[in-house]
Amino acid sequence: MNGGISFVLKGNIIYSNDDRTLKTVEQGYLVCREGKSAGVFQELPEQFKDYPLEDWGDMLLVPGLVDLHIHAPQFAFRGMGMDLELLDWLNTNTFPEEAKYADLEYAQKAYGIFADSMKKSATTRACIFGTIHRPATELLMDLMEETGLKTMIGKVNMDRNSPDFLKEQSAEASEQETLRWLEETGSRYENVKPILTPRFIPSCTDDLMERLGKLQKEYGLPVQSHLSENQGEVAWVKELCPASRFYGDAYDRFGLFGGNGKTVMAHCVSSSEEEIELIKERGVTIAHCPQSNTNLSSGVAPVRTYLDRGVKVGLGSDVAGGSGESIFRAMADAIQVSKLRWRLKDDRLKPLTVEEAFYLGTLGGGSFFGKVGSFQEGYELDVLILDDGSLPHPQTLTLRERLERFIYLSDDRHIKGKYVGGYRIF
Amino acid sequence: MNGGISFVLKGNIIYSNDDRTLKTVEQGYLVCREGKSAGVFQELPEQFKDYPLEDWGDMLLVPGLVDLHIHAPQFAFRGMGMDLELLDWLNTNTFPEEAKYADLEYAQKAYGIFADSMKKSATTRACIFGTIHRPATELLMDLMEETGLKTMIGKVNMDRNSPDFLKEQSAEASEQETLRWLEETGSRYENVKPILTPRFIPSCTDDLMERLGKLQKEYGLPVQSHLSENQGEVAWVKELCPASRFYGDAYDRFGLFGGNGKTVMAHCVSSSEEEIELIKERGVTIAHCPQSNTNLSSGVAPVRTYLDRGVKVGLGSDVAGGSGESIFRAMADAIQVSKLRWRLKDDRLKPLTVEEAFYLGTLGGGSFFGKVGSFQEGYELDVLILDDGSLPHPQTLTLRERLERFIYLSDDRHIKGKYVGGYRIF
Repeated sequence: MNGGISFVLKGNIIYSNDDRTLKTVEQGYLVCREGKSAGVFQELPEQFKDYPLEDWGDMLLVPGLVDLHIHAPQFAFRGMGMDLELLDWLNTNTFPEEAKYADLEYAQKAYGIFADSMKKSATTRACIFGTIHRPATELLMDLMEETGLKTMIGKVNMDRNSPDFLKEQSAEASEQETLRWLEETGSRYENVKPILTPRFIPSCTDDLMERLGKLQKEYGLPVQSHLSENQGEVAWVKELCPASRFYGDAYDRFGLFGGNGKTVMAHCVSSSEEEIELIKERGVTIAHCPQSNTNLSSGVAPVRTYLDRGVKVGLGSDVAGGSGESIFRAMADAIQVSKLRWRLKDDRLKPLTVEEAFYLGTLGGGSFFGKVGSFQEGYELDVLILDDGSLPHPQTLTLRERLERFIYLSDDRHIKGKYVGGYRIF
Repeated sequence: MNGGISFVLKGNIIYSNDDRTLKTVEQGYLVCREGKSAGVFQELPEQFKDYPLEDWGDMLLVPGLVDLHIHAPQFAFRGMGMDLELLDWLNTNTFPEEAKYADLEYAQKAYGIFADSMKKSATTRACIFGTIHRPATELLMDLMEETGLKTMIGKVNMDRNSPDFLKEQSAEASEQETLRWLEETGSRYENVKPILTPRFIPSCTDDLMERLGKLQKEYGLPVQSHLSENQGEVAWVKELCPASRFYGDAYDRFGLFGGNGKTVMAHCVSSSEEEIELIKERGVTIAHCPQSNTNLSSGVAPVRTYLDRGVKVGLGSDVAGGSGESIFRAMADAIQVSKLRWRLKDDRLKPLTVEEAFYLGTLGGGSFFGKVGSFQEGYELDVLILDDGSLPHPQTLTLRERLERFIYLSDDRHIKGKYVGGYRIF
């Protein structure tokens, strides 16, 4: 399907034009023309008067939220096994669970739960990790296609430093499966696109990275992976890649760090000055995953630095490092951890504001998908209809107050409608 | 009412005997004899066979949760105005809102919302701040009495360093209103008890503190206040009380710091070694409020130190410093901030575990109310019936896994029943 439809939504409209300013229009009109925004208006312009109009009364209309980093197979153990750091957590919880997706019957059950939860959530766009298993990853893509959400989904590549039950037999075998996966899925879907997904440097030999670099160029694929999440991981990469100047350089050497291809890297909690420079130079997008970085005791990424320097950054839930898929919760988490970082570690970086957190979860992450995450004219029309009526309050509130409150207090009960690219999801 | 009834609950039972060990009994029997636990059994003993039995199937049965620190008048602006530190936040958000409770009509509306939310929540016991207004505080006590929750509620005392619209006219006037309040409410309720509530040292003159110290002795009242929450606050107290050796000593000088009377002090984020010693010596209970200490950028209390040294400690939501009333959320927050404290500030204090966080929210806080917060024989029977069936999972889980998951993922939808002192609330 493509966004062929045109209509008008009336309600209390809130969106970002940039990371500092919130645009709010009380009882305004949001016009959808063929799946894209034709703008937000206080009075409905003449030329749109014959579009069908849905009046959402006192509800809030905001752009759909974007999750730049989530692991579908880990959804099964979200909220469990939180007493470990990254590398132990991978070996104890993650790898054994991901191995189960060799079994399509298990994958059907677990990915069914994941897809259903994502459909109901505030997320309209997501970058999703599968596992090394091609058939299960294709099943995940089939299920996500049906939700109507627009996603990029990756079959994971791993050919070293993981147990035999979750390792591809060789770089060549990994490349062959990836090729077959790309041929089978590259043009199969309307809503789902493949994204190249080397798990992270410790899981991929140079041979494999070189082959993936070639695939990236040949198919012009986007890339997703992990970067500078945890101190033990960063030290390990230093050992594994003596030739690399820093962690990000170990991707860059193989052409898997932005530049021609779109790349999103999760975390960047402890990126060096040089690494930040290269991230900016290559136009790499950072997926900030505040709850995961807290649960795994990784630390807190210097998001203020990234915003000030014009580095591209959005939010990721990073389930199951993060315990839930809510990007509203990720906004609150991003503000909260930035306050503790400011208080406990570095008082030069001021905490994030509500405006900035909302930007990160909408336009900041949306930019990885094109003109997505705002209601400015020409943006693809992803919309959430938010009902905060069941969060009772003794006084009337401004739209800005209602948004802040929604970020801290809401759950999926309060999402009354969801559109992606102009199409109604529910 | 008193817990006159006897019955048996069947289900998956989880509770703490201490801060390290979780007791779990699959498909066990929890016996209530005249409002108190007669024990937990794998097989139902003969002498209880004729008690009425409720079978909760696969649901989880846990002790009711205890909120040691919440401000009823601040519930109205929870989740808003989070971009300030304590002292600015008090002047900008809190004092103007609390002033509205001079108007009983406003209080009726706002406290009605508060009482209704508390009734639906996982909380069965709470220490609650009102405002300086006697009539509104009595209204709050009336409303909370009807919920069936067992609470201690305080009319706040403030006679300095606050705007005229929220200041009592003199120490004597404050004492007189407090006396009248005690006479009117001391024996009016079954579930609600008055608790002496000097807001905090900066709001109370020595004259007032001395009068409150006398009232405490005369009526044998419990006391609640704030201690060492924020660095600016601690420095201010040092200025205000040159004679005090440290913040806690400024309460202790007036007999308002444990000893004969039960005292709960919120926060203790930056308590000195001497202060911690006195807290322990006087048997003061600490209300750890992790989300509030994060939202107001106060820092993270060294809860591991308090547990290791046998200091009494439980959890507080501290609405509206904390954005919500969920003590399950406070458990997750306590674990999460302890991880960031460990990573960013002091790696000598290991993060809190699920067992410890669950203890803090049940038995740790419950001890302030007597034999409360556990299912050991003789404890007052506060029970929550938890349905995690709507948190789908592809595999079967242990009770410990289900509890951890519930702490991270649940909301009020998942609480199917609640008992306080043997009486069914819903």
